[in-house]
Amino acid sequence: MFPLNKTLQECNIQELQEVCSAIRQRILEVVSKNGGHLSSTLGAVELIVAMHHVFDYKENPFIFDVSHQAYAHKLLTGRWEKFDTLRRFGGISGFTKPSEGDYFIAGHSSTSISLGVGVAKSFALKNKKSLPIAFIGDGSMSAGLVYEALNELGDRKYPMIIILNDNEMSIAKPIGAISRYLSRLMSSSFYQTMKDGIKKILIKMPDSATYLAKRFEESFKLITPGILFEEMGIHYLGPIDGHNLESIISSLKIARDMKVPVLIHAQTIKGKGYEIAEGQHERWHGVGAFDIETGQSIKKASNLTPTEVFSQTLFDLASNDKKIVGVTAAMPTGTGLSRLIEAFPERFWDVAIAEQHAVTSMAAMAKEGFKPFVSIYSTFLQRAYDQIIHDTSIMSLPLKFAIDRAGIVGEDGETHQGLLDVAYLRPIPNMILFAPYDNASLKKAIVFASSINNAPCAFRYPRSGFILQDGIFEAQDFNLGKSRLLQRGEDILLIGYGNGVGRAYEVLNILKSHNISCGLLDLVFLKPLDLELKDILKQYKKIYVFSDSYLLGGVGSAILEYMSREGFYIPLHSFEIKDCFIEHGGIGDIEKSLGFDNFADKILVDIKNISVS
Amino acid sequence: MFPLNKTLQECNIQELQEVCSAIRQRILEVVSKNGGHLSSTLGAVELIVAMHHVFDYKENPFIFDVSHQAYAHKLLTGRWEKFDTLRRFGGISGFTKPSEGDYFIAGHSSTSISLGVGVAKSFALKNKKSLPIAFIGDGSMSAGLVYEALNELGDRKYPMIIILNDNEMSIAKPIGAISRYLSRLMSSSFYQTMKDGIKKILIKMPDSATYLAKRFEESFKLITPGILFEEMGIHYLGPIDGHNLESIISSLKIARDMKVPVLIHAQTIKGKGYEIAEGQHERWHGVGAFDIETGQSIKKASNLTPTEVFSQTLFDLASNDKKIVGVTAAMPTGTGLSRLIEAFPERFWDVAIAEQHAVTSMAAMAKEGFKPFVSIYSTFLQRAYDQIIHDTSIMSLPLKFAIDRAGIVGEDGETHQGLLDVAYLRPIPNMILFAPYDNASLKKAIVFASSINNAPCAFRYPRSGFILQDGIFEAQDFNLGKSRLLQRGEDILLIGYGNGVGRAYEVLNILKSHNISCGLLDLVFLKPLDLELKDILKQYKKIYVFSDSYLLGGVGSAILEYMSREGFYIPLHSFEIKDCFIEHGGIGDIEKSLGFDNFADKILVDIKNISVS
Repeated sequence: MFPLNKTLQECNIQELQEVCSAIRQRILEVVSKNGGHLSSTLGAVELIVAMHHVFDYKENPFIFDVSHQAYAHKLLTGRWEKFDTLRRFGGISGFTKPSEGDYFIAGHSSTSISLGVGVAKSFALKNKKSLPIAFIGDGSMSAGLVYEALNELGDRKYPMIIILNDNEMSIAKPIGAISRYLSRLMSSSFYQTMKDGIKKILIKMPDSATYLAKRFEESFKLITPGILFEEMGIHYLGPIDGHNLESIISSLKIARDMKVPVLIHAQTIKGKGYEIAEGQHERWHGVGAFDIETGQSIKKASNLTPTEVFSQTLFDLASNDKKIVGVTAAMPTGTGLSRLIEAFPERFWDVAIAEQHAVTSMAAMAKEGFKPFVSIYSTFLQRAYDQIIHDTSIMSLPLKFAIDRAGIVGEDGETHQGLLDVAYLRPIPNMILFAPYDNASLKKAIVFASSINNAPCAFRYPRSGFILQDGIFEAQDFNLGKSRLLQRGEDILLIGYGNGVGRAYEVLNILKSHNISCGLLDLVFLKPLDLELKDILKQYKKIYVFSDSYLLGGVGSAILEYMSREGFYIPLHSFEIKDCFIEHGGIGDIEKSLGFDNFADKILVDIKNISVS
Repeated sequence: MFPLNKTLQECNIQELQEVCSAIRQRILEVVSKNGGHLSSTLGAVELIVAMHHVFDYKENPFIFDVSHQAYAHKLLTGRWEKFDTLRRFGGISGFTKPSEGDYFIAGHSSTSISLGVGVAKSFALKNKKSLPIAFIGDGSMSAGLVYEALNELGDRKYPMIIILNDNEMSIAKPIGAISRYLSRLMSSSFYQTMKDGIKKILIKMPDSATYLAKRFEESFKLITPGILFEEMGIHYLGPIDGHNLESIISSLKIARDMKVPVLIHAQTIKGKGYEIAEGQHERWHGVGAFDIETGQSIKKASNLTPTEVFSQTLFDLASNDKKIVGVTAAMPTGTGLSRLIEAFPERFWDVAIAEQHAVTSMAAMAKEGFKPFVSIYSTFLQRAYDQIIHDTSIMSLPLKFAIDRAGIVGEDGETHQGLLDVAYLRPIPNMILFAPYDNASLKKAIVFASSINNAPCAFRYPRSGFILQDGIFEAQDFNLGKSRLLQRGEDILLIGYGNGVGRAYEVLNILKSHNISCGLLDLVFLKPLDLELKDILKQYKKIYVFSDSYLLGGVGSAILEYMSREGFYIPLHSFEIKDCFIEHGGIGDIEKSLGFDNFADKILVDIKNISVS
């Protein structure tokens, strides 16, 4: 099939359909091996092929929202062969990426229309006749950034096309008024009928009704399906069948010629073309390797993930404490909250992709005496930063931020890394920060979080499981501001925070095999720091810090500050992550590239310079 | 007038009107002396009085958005006398504040509906029949958080009242599609006429038209003015005259009894009751002391503010460089961008309160080769944190964040302090951070920012003027990653960043009078730090750091990290701001309360312990 012997612009409908089939096959082939986003990208194939048929993407930027649905675009723009390496270290990213030739990066939702506005402003200044084309799923329509962008776009009327890929679901079930509104549009061909009806009535009216008739004429647009968008100043086309190439192509051509902001509302089926996945919600959104024939996932048995531990523990707590409430922003399964939403629908909510609202609404619940767990991935929590500061921390309300996907996340790459939360949360006054180091201590962390009643707190845990197995160190109850010396040693102290305790423990064992005895301290609380830390630290000559967070503003930095305030100093080296964005790939490959596999070697070299007894 | 000898619930309309007059007088009296928010709060008097007439605020939380319009509420709830102390240190806050008895804090816009949703969820769980009442200005309707909240509210239908106080302006002129939409509603009584007209037509129709008639009936709501809200599932009442007590009271009672989310759209006049201010936009939003008779401000002549320097300098640059573009989020005058928006409307924009969109849309412009200046106060920039990371920094796009109101802001208090930007921006990879220390160096900073073409940068400057007068140290061009030793000294090195250079210089002079010779280093760049810093630092025995930022994750912390990485240590003490929220008051009082007036004394005590030559 590929490479084609002509451009997509030259293909007829049948040829385009063949291209679609080939793309679907290639996607299935690769995703079933490498894992990746499947159902949304299968559902978007015709839309993307039609975009390439009508537009030159080099002149008219294709801006994919979240961009996990853009595999077809990747395949059509020189990455057919290399697509094999999807999401692998050094390979093709699962998201759009400028270094691969895409227009913009995207991994967080709801940026595309805002970017489109910026492009449109630029094109106006450049007198360029091209158009930005924003491609956005219905699930991304819930976040505030979309609305902020529509608000300017509808007012200033830049020429731009928004393709609303409506598969009635983003990752989880569709939620919210906008989603309900879109469904209503879909189910009704009434509006057109009514419009025609009105015209017929008007013809029969006496002259005296002329004024009213005119007003009717003006109000026709009020009675079109896209009224919500029309009222915001965005021209609406649709709904159209997003798998019907002819219909898509003609809509795109109409929109292109209108020279105003136009939203094309296209209905698609998630998983289209792969029967097992068609119409399925969360199950087929992001997948690991699977068997194409059966749809069964190819997966080794594994321990409980931290997410599962969180889900079970919170379920148990919430069963016995009606004050516990909770929220997720469109990640019910990913965060483990789905079970609670099902069991306690009056206390646990998915508020759609709306991290700001998730936090602020829970701040009010805390004010009302409830104990809100806010379960958001580290990378997405930064979307609610002002709400954490302004609505939560100034009043010291006891929200409990359960930060999943802290640390390196692997295949999703730089837009999804959970490396900043330590640095951006620590400077916020009133905030309490702590971290568990294994599944058993995660349980204790959750229990402790629910017990805090006068301040916000946040605890973090990794995506792919803790390094430490349960039982190596018995889990203890959390005690505000108390660290835990897991092992005494001489001269060298390894300090771990969260998953860093596991890393430190690995290093400790290697050093032990070199007859070097290290102390091992679980910091437990990054904030407040243990007041007695100095008594421990002063017994050592060198400190090494381990935490899956950025070095700048990280855990090591907190200890340096502490020593400075307390007026003493022990040489300290932190093995936190250097100041750069971390690309996608298997976690093992990524960690190796960052030198995580040779901490002990570095220490061995380093301590030659210290007078170790 | 006050205290009243009866409750507001017991008052009749005429009595309520008298209350309104008394409130207006008291507000004018105090604001003309203390400064404060004037026109919005004058415009909201009847609405607030009517709220107190219909509702018990202790049962039905009054949630004021941004809350600078809530003075009437303060006066009606036990703060009539103490209102004298408005915005003064230890006095009444200019915003709602729980410690004064208000329901929630608010100083940033667009949180009220989201908070209302949280309250409604809580009341449902508590089987409480009361309602939250969100009071929100039209200007706050542009931010995404409002939309996220409406999206859940319209779907889940919690009983709640939203009072939309539409004075056709927030701080600046109304901007955006929503604003335009609201104006349209205001100008038209057409809808009601049409609704009646349709009914009349239907009566005349033959039986065969029954089906269509029914459909018309259903679609009546489509033809009401609040259709945009109705389509989102929010019941709409209005528009009503927001200064007509009878009309407001009856709307509130209707809304109260509906048991669904209801938005009351009230039109008010900003500045109502104080003729000089009526209908004025920005001029009377937030004011300093003024003469009530003439409206003239009582103000000492002062030097150019940093904002004015920014405005002039950028104007000059933009006049000669068509690649320079810029954006503000509803603060055209506050940020000094208004002059540029007027002169270059195709290159400078106010995008309304929409910090997220401001950043993301400018990221696209940077991608298109432009040089976008994003001019947002420190405290509001945290609302765009994800956009700075995800849309700007991952692709290392050269946005220039001009951070006004960095440091302590004074009378606006804890919601407006500019203390976090250093800590939350520094850990973001690719970000360049620097700071000027006087007006002349601010000019240089702006020129330097516009020259960076491969990375985002941010520079910060204080609200109330730099401590250092121009000319004390001649301004020099910025040179990426280069610090500047302003003065050599012995043993003790004072390091300043931004306005901290001025503080350090003051300390230096005091110490000089004690015959202590200190070095003075302008750090200039917080990121990247000067690579040769170690050669300088190592010449001293003690370092003191000065910066108007939080201690945690602050400038001192960056230097500690640097020394740790470089493997050396000089005892360091940072005079940055301790880990707590800073309340309102005059900057002098606040700084005194934080011990800013005795840095030198502390150093004198401290250095007795060091062996100073």
